[in-house]
Amino acid sequence: MTHSVSGGVSTPARGKLAVLMPGMGAVATTFMAGVEAIRLGMAAPVGSVSQQAVMEMADGTVGIGAVLGLAKLEELEFGGWDIYEGTTFDAARAARVLSPEHLEAVRPALEAVTPMKAVFDRRFVRNLEGPNVKGDGEKRRLVEALRADIRRFMDTRGCDRAVAIWCGSTETYVAPSPVHADLGALEKGLDEDDEYISPSMMYAYACLKEGVPYANGAPNLTLDCGALVELAEREGVAVAGKDLKTGQTLLKTIVAPGLASRHLGVNGWYSTNILGNRDGAVLDDPQSFKTKEESKLSVLGSILDAEQHPDLYDDLTHQVRIDYYPPRGDNKEGWDNIDIFGWMGYPMQIKVNFLCRDSILAAPLVLDLALFLDAAQRAGKSGVQDWLSFFFKCPQACDGEVPVHDLFEQRRRLYDGVMQLASALD
Amino acid sequence: MTHSVSGGVSTPARGKLAVLMPGMGAVATTFMAGVEAIRLGMAAPVGSVSQQAVMEMADGTVGIGAVLGLAKLEELEFGGWDIYEGTTFDAARAARVLSPEHLEAVRPALEAVTPMKAVFDRRFVRNLEGPNVKGDGEKRRLVEALRADIRRFMDTRGCDRAVAIWCGSTETYVAPSPVHADLGALEKGLDEDDEYISPSMMYAYACLKEGVPYANGAPNLTLDCGALVELAEREGVAVAGKDLKTGQTLLKTIVAPGLASRHLGVNGWYSTNILGNRDGAVLDDPQSFKTKEESKLSVLGSILDAEQHPDLYDDLTHQVRIDYYPPRGDNKEGWDNIDIFGWMGYPMQIKVNFLCRDSILAAPLVLDLALFLDAAQRAGKSGVQDWLSFFFKCPQACDGEVPVHDLFEQRRRLYDGVMQLASALD
Amino acid sequence: MTHSVSGGVSTPARGKLAVLMPGMGAVATTFMAGVEAIRLGMAAPVGSVSQQAVMEMADGTVGIGAVLGLAKLEELEFGGWDIYEGTTFDAARAARVLSPEHLEAVRPALEAVTPMKAVFDRRFVRNLEGPNVKGDGEKRRLVEALRADIRRFMDTRGCDRAVAIWCGSTETYVAPSPVHADLGALEKGLDEDDEYISPSMMYAYACLKEGVPYANGAPNLTLDCGALVELAEREGVAVAGKDLKTGQTLLKTIVAPGLASRHLGVNGWYSTNILGNRDGAVLDDPQSFKTKEESKLSVLGSILDAEQHPDLYDDLTHQVRIDYYPPRGDNKEGWDNIDIFGWMGYPMQIKVNFLCRDSILAAPLVLDLALFLDAAQRAGKSGVQDWLSFFFKCPQACDGEVPVHDLFEQRRRLYDGVMQLASALD
Amino acid sequence: MTHSVSGGVSTPARGKLAVLMPGMGAVATTFMAGVEAIRLGMAAPVGSVSQQAVMEMADGTVGIGAVLGLAKLEELEFGGWDIYEGTTFDAARAARVLSPEHLEAVRPALEAVTPMKAVFDRRFVRNLEGPNVKGDGEKRRLVEALRADIRRFMDTRGCDRAVAIWCGSTETYVAPSPVHADLGALEKGLDEDDEYISPSMMYAYACLKEGVPYANGAPNLTLDCGALVELAEREGVAVAGKDLKTGQTLLKTIVAPGLASRHLGVNGWYSTNILGNRDGAVLDDPQSFKTKEESKLSVLGSILDAEQHPDLYDDLTHQVRIDYYPPRGDNKEGWDNIDIFGWMGYPMQIKVNFLCRDSILAAPLVLDLALFLDAAQRAGKSGVQDWLSFFFKCPQACDGEVPVHDLFEQRRRLYDGVMQLASALD
Repeated sequence: MTHSVSGGVSTPARGKLAVLMPGMGAVATTFMAGVEAIRLGMAAPVGSVSQQAVMEMADGTVGIGAVLGLAKLEELEFGGWDIYEGTTFDAARAARVLSPEHLEAVRPALEAVTPMKAVFDRRFVRNLEGPNVKGDGEKRRLVEALRADIRRFMDTRGCDRAVAIWCGSTETYVAPSPVHADLGALEKGLDEDDEYISPSMMYAYACLKEGVPYANGAPNLTLDCGALVELAEREGVAVAGKDLKTGQTLLKTIVAPGLASRHLGVNGWYSTNILGNRDGAVLDDPQSFKTKEESKLSVLGSILDAEQHPDLYDDLTHQVRIDYYPPRGDNKEGWDNIDIFGWMGYPMQIKVNFLCRDSILAAPLVLDLALFLDAAQRAGKSGVQDWLSFFFKCPQACDGEVPVHDLFEQRRRLYDGVMQLASALD
Repeated sequence: MTHSVSGGVSTPARGKLAVLMPGMGAVATTFMAGVEAIRLGMAAPVGSVSQQAVMEMADGTVGIGAVLGLAKLEELEFGGWDIYEGTTFDAARAARVLSPEHLEAVRPALEAVTPMKAVFDRRFVRNLEGPNVKGDGEKRRLVEALRADIRRFMDTRGCDRAVAIWCGSTETYVAPSPVHADLGALEKGLDEDDEYISPSMMYAYACLKEGVPYANGAPNLTLDCGALVELAEREGVAVAGKDLKTGQTLLKTIVAPGLASRHLGVNGWYSTNILGNRDGAVLDDPQSFKTKEESKLSVLGSILDAEQHPDLYDDLTHQVRIDYYPPRGDNKEGWDNIDIFGWMGYPMQIKVNFLCRDSILAAPLVLDLALFLDAAQRAGKSGVQDWLSFFFKCPQACDGEVPVHDLFEQRRRLYDGVMQLASALD
Repeated sequence: MTHSVSGGVSTPARGKLAVLMPGMGAVATTFMAGVEAIRLGMAAPVGSVSQQAVMEMADGTVGIGAVLGLAKLEELEFGGWDIYEGTTFDAARAARVLSPEHLEAVRPALEAVTPMKAVFDRRFVRNLEGPNVKGDGEKRRLVEALRADIRRFMDTRGCDRAVAIWCGSTETYVAPSPVHADLGALEKGLDEDDEYISPSMMYAYACLKEGVPYANGAPNLTLDCGALVELAEREGVAVAGKDLKTGQTLLKTIVAPGLASRHLGVNGWYSTNILGNRDGAVLDDPQSFKTKEESKLSVLGSILDAEQHPDLYDDLTHQVRIDYYPPRGDNKEGWDNIDIFGWMGYPMQIKVNFLCRDSILAAPLVLDLALFLDAAQRAGKSGVQDWLSFFFKCPQACDGEVPVHDLFEQRRRLYDGVMQLASALD
Repeated sequence: MTHSVSGGVSTPARGKLAVLMPGMGAVATTFMAGVEAIRLGMAAPVGSVSQQAVMEMADGTVGIGAVLGLAKLEELEFGGWDIYEGTTFDAARAARVLSPEHLEAVRPALEAVTPMKAVFDRRFVRNLEGPNVKGDGEKRRLVEALRADIRRFMDTRGCDRAVAIWCGSTETYVAPSPVHADLGALEKGLDEDDEYISPSMMYAYACLKEGVPYANGAPNLTLDCGALVELAEREGVAVAGKDLKTGQTLLKTIVAPGLASRHLGVNGWYSTNILGNRDGAVLDDPQSFKTKEESKLSVLGSILDAEQHPDLYDDLTHQVRIDYYPPRGDNKEGWDNIDIFGWMGYPMQIKVNFLCRDSILAAPLVLDLALFLDAAQRAGKSGVQDWLSFFFKCPQACDGEVPVHDLFEQRRRLYDGVMQLASALD
């Protein structure tokens, strides 16, 4: 399907773009390795909208990169923070996502990047521990240290602009509390070391204060509450979230709209996941799982709308399980059983077994979010970018809006957003 | 997802609408039984867009039936032709689709309808044979007999309007030949008993000559060639086809657009089907299977566009198998294995196992097509109704257009079509 | 495969056999309905070894029933206890296992049986509650009431012999404690109302004291500890357990021996179950689930023997999940993913999806256990009958023996046991 | 499960054993690579009974290799014939079964072996063609050339004994005809260039005349008729066949005995396979597929015995499909749907999805057959070795016997056979 766009191509971005990643594990290093492999001509940018999509203009089809004047892959500079020591090559090797051949080919590029010391608090990620951390300390001081990291990185690498994408672990469940409600409360909380301010919020705060657009790749609360959205709008910075839409949920938001469009009934959707990577180990902690489960359970309600169609969706049982299963490593697997019913109520079943790869599906989304957020920022957009909901399991909507989960409705909004941006960047 | 429509509701249709079905087996009788069950308040109209969809208008949501002034279920009169003797109750019981309880509840309505004698030619359906046929004879004479059937049915039942939906078997593969090319050739062929004119073409010809809109529910060639489209346009009659999109292909055109929208690569799609009903027995004949296979194989090309994205889809192997497997009866089952690849070319797999029910999925489409075609006819539309592609495995496009298979693009076109019709009917 | 037996057929059992079931829900009523359907000539005894197996004797094949002189179906009298009021017809209807037609056909037989008041203690089954109970009270008194029930039932029904099969729910996890260690301690515990004596133990105690053989169809501790085995041996009564081997575990103990016999490696076995019947509701309580999980996890260790073959099974991750999923009712479903490896360590995967029916698989095992235990008792066997391990998820072994889980080794032992019994009964 | 054996260990074999393989493609080279990897200490002999099984003797457990004095891996010398030029390293690389790392590690060993020119006749394998052939010519002359090859190989490599395992392609279907009926007819046919004598028969003839035991790894007719069995017995040579039991059929003969032992009914078994290696290309020819299909269809009849249990198996529909699906290469995949029924006839379903690897599963069977056939030959056994049925899809039985397909009954016979051999070799 080709999408149309009116008007001409945008002025290309100029200068180097820093891509900063809190959490440089499997996802971040696979993203970096892939960008390097594409630069070397060894791989096509599979799974990436920003590199693959074409749009129809008056005088023929044009790549979406040209439409928005997106930053080129050669202009990206990678950096970030992680709790483990060593270079990103070490991290990539430990992640066991890529083949020895691929690792070897991108070795120089990955050895050139070493994560900065992370802000880490084990109360929020109970199944991990690492030495490369800034240590305990007052939250205000840690936030200032992150801001200094960002400035230093951009200086030493000669970057003109930056974007940040959270590629770290899922934090334990944090309920929204008064400290998250508005910017004043959050600022006060930072000064007073409030225990409900998680590391991911500190990263986001630091980035926004530095004018760096921020995407939340995990299901963490981070940007979901008033304080940081207020900051983003005040500072004129674009943000987007949350939780990269990769395996099972991607398929769920593909299949469910299809069933809904045919007005087939659904009375059960059972989803189980097995995965054996660090993400799985983190989710083996019930508190982290709760964060993820909330994210994964949210997607069906707006697609299979029980209020509008009680006869079709009123009795829907939706269950999601995630099990840490070491034999699989990063090659996670989902199994869905969907109980549907049709004409006269007769039951039918759909089973979907997805043998996927966590980081392989996530990596191109990191690239897309980096480039689209940068374009939004260049176009002067600030606050929540809900046209990027296409990339998220649990998309953040603008004030008062209901999040859209239907992938095809998200696709329409993505391309509408691109057209609006193209006009603004013209 | 709610679709918007501007303007007000349409004037409702008035009078009785004949729904004529060549082929009154499992699909037709399940459709009739379900309509009766809904009338009796025993069932919701699950799976039917015409009964379930709501649209947003200026002053709130309105059912699509009101938007188009669709015929009411109480206004439908059922009739048709079949090669087997007995009432449609006998046919429904033999089809073994419905439970004894359901059958009993709708018994009076189904016993009231007995199929008319069919036009049948065993060279086109080699695995069936039945006594309730008009016998051999010149094609011109048979066509006239069908026209007389239609007029008599409408008279005796007091119908104001009629639509016809082919619910019969898949015919053997017929390649387009000169006799199908234009109306003149077809007329001459009818007079000369041309062997390439199949029964389904004769039904369609008779309907169009009687001003009855016609939908082609099977993969037969019928409407695909110039002659009958020319007739439809000349007579000002709406037509649509072909091959109701039900089980495996429905899911395929749901999943493939999802993969394409994410620009994931696909290098293999293997689909197998097992079914044990009369449809399965017919498709056990390689010549009938070929007709079906062509229909089922056509759907991926335009969604996974190898011309635009050779790096993603150039090596795609697409295979479709259908096996006649008696233990299953009407409860057919599909198994798909999809070989995809992502970032840096890493392979992943999706398996979809669909335990479905052929007639249960098809029945509401018969209802939708009957009502929408009638609305199109009332709105003065004639020729191919490509906005109804949503319902077909192998949608017929208007002259020079490429058929759309992406279910979500079809959904968009369906609602665009509804809005246009609503304006015309206003 | 036909098994050989030497010698002649045994003298048939004479008189009526009471089949007593603590717990008359889905399993018990499906068992009763099926026996009645077979008596009426409406069904074959599918899934029952005692009714189907044939053995080779010197002068041709003979049914296993004749080999052991098993009780005839006409000689069985059904009774038991349950916490719900109403007849077993009401219970069968509530269980929603059988079709309306089947229910109606066996209605008289099921309406003739009303469960006696149950011994129930909600601390052991937290998700159920019912009115038909003997009430709280001293355990000794309750046990005596059960013994009186048994005597009264046999008197009024004119039974010569009785067997008991636990068909009730899974109790919460009970760790073996001193009160279970020997008969003296248990007797004392009954007198002192020890809180670790569960209802299932009280039923077993009452049966054994009355000389009634007892089979444990659930994963409850009941017979696993010294006290009741001691009682069985002292009273000369046969016992067997535990946990009927039905769906997923049945398939697991079929597939695992196959892999082991080929010396293929296994490094992961992930099993998930969804079920929506009362059993599922009970297992939704983590304490009951723990009892079941222990039972289900135990089966692989002795088949995939890591001690003998560390290179093949040392890294085996075995996980079992059970989720209460109401849409499915009694039609539970298992999904297994098995990660195996072969020559040179190359990984392969097996997925098994079992759409089964809990009570349909369990019912014939109730019949088989009733008849085989009765035969054992007639042959003078007492204590643990380990030759019946074929029927159990978690077979009880005789003192000092290791339980066998390989279904085919269990099959061999079953037929060896039959041959020994045949000699004893000759 | 450990099997018992009485008596002591056997005298070990002495000297070098030639393992000759007609057809040195994926299976043969994977077998060779694995043996080399084991020799190098890089891999465990996974999937091999001869290397892994242990038996219980009076004084503890002993490996089966010691029980039979099997040839050591260091004593094996590999050779064979193939229609493609190059070394077995080239063939292994082209087969794309093994990883680059594994290939590199065994490179020297594989480069040291170059296949001899093959006897090939394209009428029997229509989808292949290669240059390394002996050319057309009289069959008698070709057979003599093969015999000379064998003698030369054993001389130059200093081998004391030899065994041959057919590792080549499936030939087109050959119906048994008079020329295969007895040795006299076959000899005459060789002299007269009879068109029904296939290459595989010529290899077997040549081996047997040279006193080399022969195993038939493919479903070809080869040893199934009187002539070659007569020759084997006359020359005192052991033979075994046919068709290595690897993926789907292996699982089928694991699952079916489990169902049969529980006396569950089966009314449908649908099996489909997708594979993309050379074997798949060969089977894409309907004539070769027919040979394979006959082999794969034969396995259920004796396990699910309709004669003994008409109420359980009389209506069984068994279908097998194999589709050539290039995306998968050697990593073939099977999907089985099994329709079973239980108590009172209620239907249930089992689906088995096996993501396997053809050559990885076959390779250890080549090793086992080589060593066991050699042991049989040393023990003076000649003719059909039906105790090796464990390894075959379509086991050859001795005169008048019915072949056994139940894997667990085959397992029992294998170990019985080992015990007999051990006595003979003592």
